[in-house]
Amino acid sequence: MAEENGRQGEPCVRSKTGGTLTKGDVVVLTLRLLCMATSVTAMSFMVTARQVSAASFYGFQLQLHSKWSFSYSFEYLVGVTATATAYSLLQLLIAGSRLLVKKSPVIPSRNQAWLVFAGDQILAYAMMSAGSAASGVANLNRTGIRHTALPNFCKSLDSFCDHVTVSIAFTFFSCVMYAAAAVQDVIWLSTH
Amino acid sequence: MAEENGRQGEPCVRSKTGGTLTKGDVVVLTLRLLCMATSVTAMSFMVTARQVSAASFYGFQLQLHSKWSFSYSFEYLVGVTATATAYSLLQLLIAGSRLLVKKSPVIPSRNQAWLVFAGDQILAYAMMSAGSAASGVANLNRTGIRHTALPNFCKSLDSFCDHVTVSIAFTFFSCVMYAAAAVQDVIWLSTH
Repeated sequence: MAEENGRQGEPCVRSKTGGTLTKGDVVVLTLRLLCMATSVTAMSFMVTARQVSAASFYGFQLQLHSKWSFSYSFEYLVGVTATATAYSLLQLLIAGSRLLVKKSPVIPSRNQAWLVFAGDQILAYAMMSAGSAASGVANLNRTGIRHTALPNFCKSLDSFCDHVTVSIAFTFFSCVMYAAAAVQDVIWLSTH
Repeated sequence: MAEENGRQGEPCVRSKTGGTLTKGDVVVLTLRLLCMATSVTAMSFMVTARQVSAASFYGFQLQLHSKWSFSYSFEYLVGVTATATAYSLLQLLIAGSRLLVKKSPVIPSRNQAWLVFAGDQILAYAMMSAGSAASGVANLNRTGIRHTALPNFCKSLDSFCDHVTVSIAFTFFSCVMYAAAAVQDVIWLSTH
């Protein structure tokens, strides 16, 4: 029972519940955990990005309200990271239940592997898209728009801009994680 | 000689130069051609996006110069599509020379397949990134920025905005093509 879960030639670690964890399984679970952690971090930094500040432009005193939900791109980022978090949690639960409860491999069949590959690919693309759209807008905020004479918003909205920057960084890191998960799926497909 | 190029169970088309084109080879070549065509179209629409127009905002008469090189995101899109065009042309030349001159399969080894897969993946991500960054900025142009009271630039810069929109649409289509090429590589890897 324990032997059939371990792939040939891979070192096996016997888990406390009696199943076997191959090196491949550990990599899959670690990647899924990292995917979820980075998605949650990106989402929470973006959702907490709001600031009220005052600035004077050309002698006028303006009150600046900034909130993530004022920009479509930031809303999109929150939507994508929320979806990614839900997907990763689901994947983690499925993988965990297969390994610990049913004592079967994480990926039981080729069809399942193709399905997981498709999911990982789509989320990697979505993450890349969200990060890029948000950084396009964040870049405008930081430098001012070049063909109009808008001032630099980030001077007066420093906390808002920092939150957005950290969130975008984690979104790109998350994209790399999903891309790695997709490559892991391809390795599985090419060797099984 | 002709037989060893055809994969088992696949219909073979005898080309004029004496080599054999399997259904897989035709798919690969078609995808590469589509990748190149969409990249070139996206790039040329963006590079030709420029307009000079006049608009009156709140009673002031303003002259608006718009050009793709005024926005970092649009410059990035041009860079990515140019790289993609060069890459696709190179791939097409390599595939063509292998098929027609050397009469060997398009993808000769697993290592080569992994290399092509990596290239296609990276370009698909880059395309998605460029399209998203540009559409984040284009969306701002079209709707005005919500937390400041900027007017809608696209009313007076209609030709510029149309060029940008078409370019972004082709960038996303190009992304889909590269993603399809990557999936094609995975199918090759999983069956060889």
